[in-house]
Amino acid sequence: MSLTVGVIGGGQLARMMIPPAVELGIGLRVLAETEASSAGLAASAIGDYRDREAVLAFADTVDVVTFDHEHVPQVLLHELVDRGVRVHPGPQALLYAQDKLLMRARLAELGLPVPDWAAVASVHDLTGFIDAHGGRAIVKTPRGGYDGKGVRVVADARDVADWFDDDQPLLAEELVEFRRELSQVLARRPSGEIALWPVVESVQRDGVCAEVIAPAPHSAGRVAQVAADIATSIAENLDVTGVLAVELFETTDDRLLVNELAMRPHNSGHWSIDGSTTSQFEQHLRAVLDLPLGATGSRDPWSVMVNVLGGVADSAHDVRLAAAMADQPDVKLHFYGKQARPGRKVGHVTAGGADLDDVVFRARAAAAFFED
Amino acid sequence: MSLTVGVIGGGQLARMMIPPAVELGIGLRVLAETEASSAGLAASAIGDYRDREAVLAFADTVDVVTFDHEHVPQVLLHELVDRGVRVHPGPQALLYAQDKLLMRARLAELGLPVPDWAAVASVHDLTGFIDAHGGRAIVKTPRGGYDGKGVRVVADARDVADWFDDDQPLLAEELVEFRRELSQVLARRPSGEIALWPVVESVQRDGVCAEVIAPAPHSAGRVAQVAADIATSIAENLDVTGVLAVELFETTDDRLLVNELAMRPHNSGHWSIDGSTTSQFEQHLRAVLDLPLGATGSRDPWSVMVNVLGGVADSAHDVRLAAAMADQPDVKLHFYGKQARPGRKVGHVTAGGADLDDVVFRARAAAAFFED
Repeated sequence: MSLTVGVIGGGQLARMMIPPAVELGIGLRVLAETEASSAGLAASAIGDYRDREAVLAFADTVDVVTFDHEHVPQVLLHELVDRGVRVHPGPQALLYAQDKLLMRARLAELGLPVPDWAAVASVHDLTGFIDAHGGRAIVKTPRGGYDGKGVRVVADARDVADWFDDDQPLLAEELVEFRRELSQVLARRPSGEIALWPVVESVQRDGVCAEVIAPAPHSAGRVAQVAADIATSIAENLDVTGVLAVELFETTDDRLLVNELAMRPHNSGHWSIDGSTTSQFEQHLRAVLDLPLGATGSRDPWSVMVNVLGGVADSAHDVRLAAAMADQPDVKLHFYGKQARPGRKVGHVTAGGADLDDVVFRARAAAAFFED
Repeated sequence: MSLTVGVIGGGQLARMMIPPAVELGIGLRVLAETEASSAGLAASAIGDYRDREAVLAFADTVDVVTFDHEHVPQVLLHELVDRGVRVHPGPQALLYAQDKLLMRARLAELGLPVPDWAAVASVHDLTGFIDAHGGRAIVKTPRGGYDGKGVRVVADARDVADWFDDDQPLLAEELVEFRRELSQVLARRPSGEIALWPVVESVQRDGVCAEVIAPAPHSAGRVAQVAADIATSIAENLDVTGVLAVELFETTDDRLLVNELAMRPHNSGHWSIDGSTTSQFEQHLRAVLDLPLGATGSRDPWSVMVNVLGGVADSAHDVRLAAAMADQPDVKLHFYGKQARPGRKVGHVTAGGADLDDVVFRARAAAAFFED
């Protein structure tokens, strides 16, 4: 029997594991939310990631369990481990991707550079934090923040008074003055091997990743080294297995601060499908199976990924697809099998080449065909 | 609804269409021989390609019908076309991939360079051909020749006396004195657009493709141009749609002669998955859907593909896989989900780089891990 990876969650990250699984001859099974999920082709079971029976039954059919997202409850993750299921990343690591307060505390403990932060339990606490940080703060619900949801910039603590209703502390962070956002993606095997891709620049719009430039311009040398060191330290100290993405702020005074962690393939690594010898999706499969990691050299001096946000209705999509292909024959087009919806990530495109301006132009031009 | 391609036959060629279909967001359905077929993941129906009911029902579920192989009977292909199904390549083109005698006659009519040949209907005819060609000839059954089967080199016509039992003429060809075998792969859309990959060198062992070097060494200039011209002429004159592979002999006196045609993705194009901006499998999907073709530039100066023939038993495969990955982290490994069997194509590996000797070494080293 060939090795089989089980993915809990059927979104686009699970979907993008299908091509490398097919290529490597590795079995892939997905516990998908619905038949129509992005990764529906590989769905071997339909069920909710919080459904104990569904998750346990699914786990029995695979060699290792991994994830499309970080939301599987800790109690269920621990039960899997207790039953002898290989789970990567494991519960102890995932905890820090699930809870931003625990993450901040742990990174601070490790001496890693993070923005000023505090756990705030009341409007009073938060007011104090805001006053101490120039009159503004970012407030985050420790669990459930994703792509700008559950995150708000406030000057008045009363604006998020209702966020305290759950009687859980919130995370308050300083508003970092940053030049740009970077992301360091790596993969780590249970047995310890780590492979890093070059640090990339991630351009956000409205709190959502819009574009990624790989490698990050002007990052050779110190920036690349610091980013790699931070991410490696996090991977090793938190015992992360599989792909880890560390989102970083490059501050106006030339520091790198850790913003967010993701313990799964990440939007800032999608460029690697076309731009690297080993994509983050192939590498994730290798890593969670504890197979030797692939080379992470770049295929082009520059790769630029542009997200397709929103998309166009099915009736128009095929016409746009043909137009984009005709206009940009060397841009790689990726769609996730999702219905169009404003702001939704329905696909991405990647261009590569030696002239960054040209590469950016081509990637944006291809993506623009799918704007409504 | 997204565009959906239907593939008749569930072998590795259909399997290798799955990754680009998933990436492009194109639906892929396969009429597979069994649940355990290589392309089983995308199988939407199980049935025989000669089963009229099965094929017609399958065709109703897709936008265009294409093929994993060239064996679907002409009568059934024509019935599909008559019912308004888009079939690519179409019956009139496939005829020449199905019948080597018709192919020879048509190419000769077009003035394309082919080995000396004749239709021979008896031992007496064949003896005459052998006598006129230095005492030896290649004899082929016009239908059903594949990877050395149904093909024999004879010095005495009586050796294939039983091949005449079907009362069908055989194809006799001169034994070409060739320096090497080349292959020109291209794709053509119904609306006429053609895109070619560079001509490659194909190294055969025991009548089976063992290695492919892309581009063919010392092919820049005249050889590349002649190969491209021949293949383009065949594609246009035979109205081939989808991928076409033209296998060529480079003779010791510097001519290129057409050996075989394949109207589907071909082993000599597998390198393009990792070595070209657009793989032959993505291009085939684009072409049969009449979508604009992708760029066919090479990602590396040299790509070398080595077939994995035979393979090792499942129990040993995972260990070999780990060893190959550790030894050759930048070689791309491909397996077809097939059981090991002597001589069977169970996978391939592709290496790329600037130094051909090094690229050949790495590809062979990776493939060697899977030899029994």
